[in-house]
Amino acid sequence: MAATTETTTNARRATTPGAAYEPTDRTVPSRSRERARYDRETVHSILDQAYLCHLGFIRDGAPVVLPTLFGRVGERLYLHGSTGSRPLLAAKADPGLPVCVTVTHVDGLVLARSAFHHSLNYRSVVVHGTAHQVTDEAERRLALNALVDQVVPGRSADSRPADAKELAATAVIRLDLTEVSAKIRTGGPNDDPEDLDLPFWSGVVPVAPAYGTPVPAADLAPGIAAPDYLAAL
Amino acid sequence: MAATTETTTNARRATTPGAAYEPTDRTVPSRSRERARYDRETVHSILDQAYLCHLGFIRDGAPVVLPTLFGRVGERLYLHGSTGSRPLLAAKADPGLPVCVTVTHVDGLVLARSAFHHSLNYRSVVVHGTAHQVTDEAERRLALNALVDQVVPGRSADSRPADAKELAATAVIRLDLTEVSAKIRTGGPNDDPEDLDLPFWSGVVPVAPAYGTPVPAADLAPGIAAPDYLAAL
Repeated sequence: MAATTETTTNARRATTPGAAYEPTDRTVPSRSRERARYDRETVHSILDQAYLCHLGFIRDGAPVVLPTLFGRVGERLYLHGSTGSRPLLAAKADPGLPVCVTVTHVDGLVLARSAFHHSLNYRSVVVHGTAHQVTDEAERRLALNALVDQVVPGRSADSRPADAKELAATAVIRLDLTEVSAKIRTGGPNDDPEDLDLPFWSGVVPVAPAYGTPVPAADLAPGIAAPDYLAAL
Repeated sequence: MAATTETTTNARRATTPGAAYEPTDRTVPSRSRERARYDRETVHSILDQAYLCHLGFIRDGAPVVLPTLFGRVGERLYLHGSTGSRPLLAAKADPGLPVCVTVTHVDGLVLARSAFHHSLNYRSVVVHGTAHQVTDEAERRLALNALVDQVVPGRSADSRPADAKELAATAVIRLDLTEVSAKIRTGGPNDDPEDLDLPFWSGVVPVAPAYGTPVPAADLAPGIAAPDYLAAL
């Protein structure tokens, strides 16, 4: 069971070798261009270590940014929500909903001698495109499994799948990975040479998400141990 | 010095008692309304535990979401960037740049028996409004200190302030906290009663950022120890 689950998750996450994403006017940053990456391996790796994205869209002429879960399957991102949610309704209509989906990991606080050169070490991916509602039932089920497995790989096979009522209440949208860029900063502070002798500590404070000991639900039936796939977090 | 620094940071972060933010059409969520909060104390607390936000704006008719640092001073958020960056240039022109700034903390992975009830425990703040460039030099310096202190409280007083050239290269924008909401999910999974006997583990995996041992810059002069304020992280 565990092996099958892992295979399924890996298949969904496969990175097809091949060309990088083609840079476009909006995926080439106006500054720090040396931090930009377009290869699929880097982009997929940043996406696959995350489960939360920030979804941007336009409502009544103004920008809106909401945190939400996503799942990656090959060259597609899937997002979901209530059928009554405003962006999901907007994605249902032709010609879809223009969106920007951004995923960010913070890896370190970069403390320079100068306030100006303070920074973060980070890895981010920005995806531009048009989201469309998914109506095919098989693709909807695939997407919902991917959303659960993005949070905890292997979990979708170890939970009750959505029933007809739940499927009817859930909207799924799809965003193709075509206009995509990653941006990465690593390393220590970039102080100016004339600042190196200033009496201020400088360096990097590493940051990473920490997962605590799983807390069983208050009503968990006795004898059900925390599954092994949680240890992999 | 440390005490002064702390007092300065606390003053900037003061929460004036008083009415909550007035809910508006776009700050009342279309679902899970019981998770919404509008009181200043909750909003400020979520903001002050973060330093990274996701900034949404519209460029050439399409939404853009970028990760960036922010600093809170009273009822204002400050963001900064290169004077050549596209959103900062757009904020310079009248009547400012319509933006949405979102801050999200993930507190736990919520694993239910049903795939449908999987969720996250989280705290988020969404701010809608119009960003304007800050031109007053004193306010610009205040904002830049706040941005550094948002990452590491007390750090701005222990680094070299921006000089004239750095100030000239840096654009600062301001967003007033007027149209604001927080959203919070806490607690265990909300499984349906008929699912409670299913043989799947359910519960919450706690998540929190972990800060590692500070790594000194390779060129740090000998004898400069990591400052005490890093221990407070």
